[in-house]
Amino acid sequence: MQYKAVKLVKRPELNITPDLFEVVTLDTRPLQDGEILIKQTHMSLDPAMKGWMMPDKGSYIPPVELGAIMRSSGLAEVVESRNPKFETGSRVMGMIGWTEYAITDGAGLQVVPAGIPADAVLSVLALPGLTAYQGLINVARPKAGETLVVSGAAGSVGSMAGQMGKAEGLRVIGTAGSDEKCRWLEDELGFDKAINYKTADLRAELAAAAPDGVDIYFENTGGPVQHAVYELMNAHGRIAVCGMIADYNTANPAPGPNWMNIIRKRLTIQGFTMPDHVAQFPEIVQKIAAYFMAGKLKYRAHKLQGLESAIEGINLLFTGGNEGKLMVEL
Amino acid sequence: MQYKAVKLVKRPELNITPDLFEVVTLDTRPLQDGEILIKQTHMSLDPAMKGWMMPDKGSYIPPVELGAIMRSSGLAEVVESRNPKFETGSRVMGMIGWTEYAITDGAGLQVVPAGIPADAVLSVLALPGLTAYQGLINVARPKAGETLVVSGAAGSVGSMAGQMGKAEGLRVIGTAGSDEKCRWLEDELGFDKAINYKTADLRAELAAAAPDGVDIYFENTGGPVQHAVYELMNAHGRIAVCGMIADYNTANPAPGPNWMNIIRKRLTIQGFTMPDHVAQFPEIVQKIAAYFMAGKLKYRAHKLQGLESAIEGINLLFTGGNEGKLMVEL
Repeated sequence: MQYKAVKLVKRPELNITPDLFEVVTLDTRPLQDGEILIKQTHMSLDPAMKGWMMPDKGSYIPPVELGAIMRSSGLAEVVESRNPKFETGSRVMGMIGWTEYAITDGAGLQVVPAGIPADAVLSVLALPGLTAYQGLINVARPKAGETLVVSGAAGSVGSMAGQMGKAEGLRVIGTAGSDEKCRWLEDELGFDKAINYKTADLRAELAAAAPDGVDIYFENTGGPVQHAVYELMNAHGRIAVCGMIADYNTANPAPGPNWMNIIRKRLTIQGFTMPDHVAQFPEIVQKIAAYFMAGKLKYRAHKLQGLESAIEGINLLFTGGNEGKLMVEL
Repeated sequence: MQYKAVKLVKRPELNITPDLFEVVTLDTRPLQDGEILIKQTHMSLDPAMKGWMMPDKGSYIPPVELGAIMRSSGLAEVVESRNPKFETGSRVMGMIGWTEYAITDGAGLQVVPAGIPADAVLSVLALPGLTAYQGLINVARPKAGETLVVSGAAGSVGSMAGQMGKAEGLRVIGTAGSDEKCRWLEDELGFDKAINYKTADLRAELAAAAPDGVDIYFENTGGPVQHAVYELMNAHGRIAVCGMIADYNTANPAPGPNWMNIIRKRLTIQGFTMPDHVAQFPEIVQKIAAYFMAGKLKYRAHKLQGLESAIEGINLLFTGGNEGKLMVEL
């Protein structure tokens, strides 16, 4: 059977352009013992992908090799199985790549519990939810009553982090790039306040929204939000550094704030990436499923159609054009 | 009996100038029950004092009030006691201030074990040693075989942090501002490498001295050393932010590095100040005394003579003019 896949054939200079990719047609082959054939139904597009395309800078995982299928996580159905761990018809999630089908021994794939809608798997249970949980709960260690600011709050990770913050009894303030996103955060997700960083007097509105200062900053963006929140941090504040999307598309990343405030306020600023925490995934998935079942985690999926829509569509992540978790339906 | 003290009467604009202070002559009075009269013999001068003179910026301890005796730590002899906790003739250390004598109820004073030379008390057992221990051991949690960089390594805190690093089995690199200081660090204190940041090709020499990268950065200075070390940090590196002396005397503190590296390397950057850890002082003093008794902690005291020498002498800390722990002998 023939299927399509997308290979990375060139590294980006600055932006992600169609000439970086090549669409190829491949053939399946008979399975060997231990292998499964999976058909991807939903493919996740995430900001980290840009880093995976760039030349090796000693980042946390090596770049995608030129000529290899582009890396991504996704949800798939097991079409055929010669591996007793995976039943035909069951659903799995993991790093599947930009491809319609794949043959694998199942290493790194997790079976997805039945009864959770496909959109929700990628929006809530997959990497964005895991990332939000790790950063908010395990890195920042929130205490009820504290104030949390989430940048990129309408994004896939930010929207989960903010809702987990509400579930933990925090005052939650989000920043996002449009009034529509801000309304969604306040009206649908229950954020105490959402601020449009493109139009607001950022410092004044943040200070007004956080009258007792900021205890936790969940950093997804860098840029002006970073500097404004940093000035408002309380003593013993924690900053979980998850993403710097404002800098992924710049040749010269902007300077960070001076470190005096780190001493004055005894801040802890901690970066994290999920490949370090793979061993904890099953435990974290259970915790997130509990929030989800309790109705604490709402999501919005922004779905593109067809494998090749990823090529242009991934840029929505860097222009703020997506509304909710960006994914491709295959 | 009459004695001299120095009051802070004006806040610094930028530099510490003699007109900020007023030398006054005071009189002792008869002691009440519970009080002691102490005669200060050694008074510590520390970079943090500049912050204590500045207007309140919500720092970790409030500024010295105008008209009050300038704040400092020191070593004193108990001259007269109506407090059973303090014997006449014993030595105490604590926040005594810029004064020759003081009457106090003893709150916050620690009795100093006999047999430790006076210079060593302020150089090793007092705030610099406590600070070095807290930052290196409790914040950065070193493991034998790791590489440590200490900036301001010839300073009172830095020289202790580097030696504790050697005692813990680390590779220790220091930066300092003169060749003479670098020789002292390498030849006397046993640093693996010391780099004169004023004359060296900082990035190249640091990279050469740390062929396996940097696991721990003990930050005393900010400035160009900060940026150069930050680029060399290994995955899961820890940065203990103790001081930013390059910025204490600037109206516009320099920007810090971009935060991308915090994610790429999963760094933890943590600020700390000692007033948060007063409860642990007795425990830390014991640990430091053990290093000292084992001959692991050498020190050099830079002694000024007489109370009023503090007024001009404190600036040695900001010009790098002191050689070793700066103190005033009274």
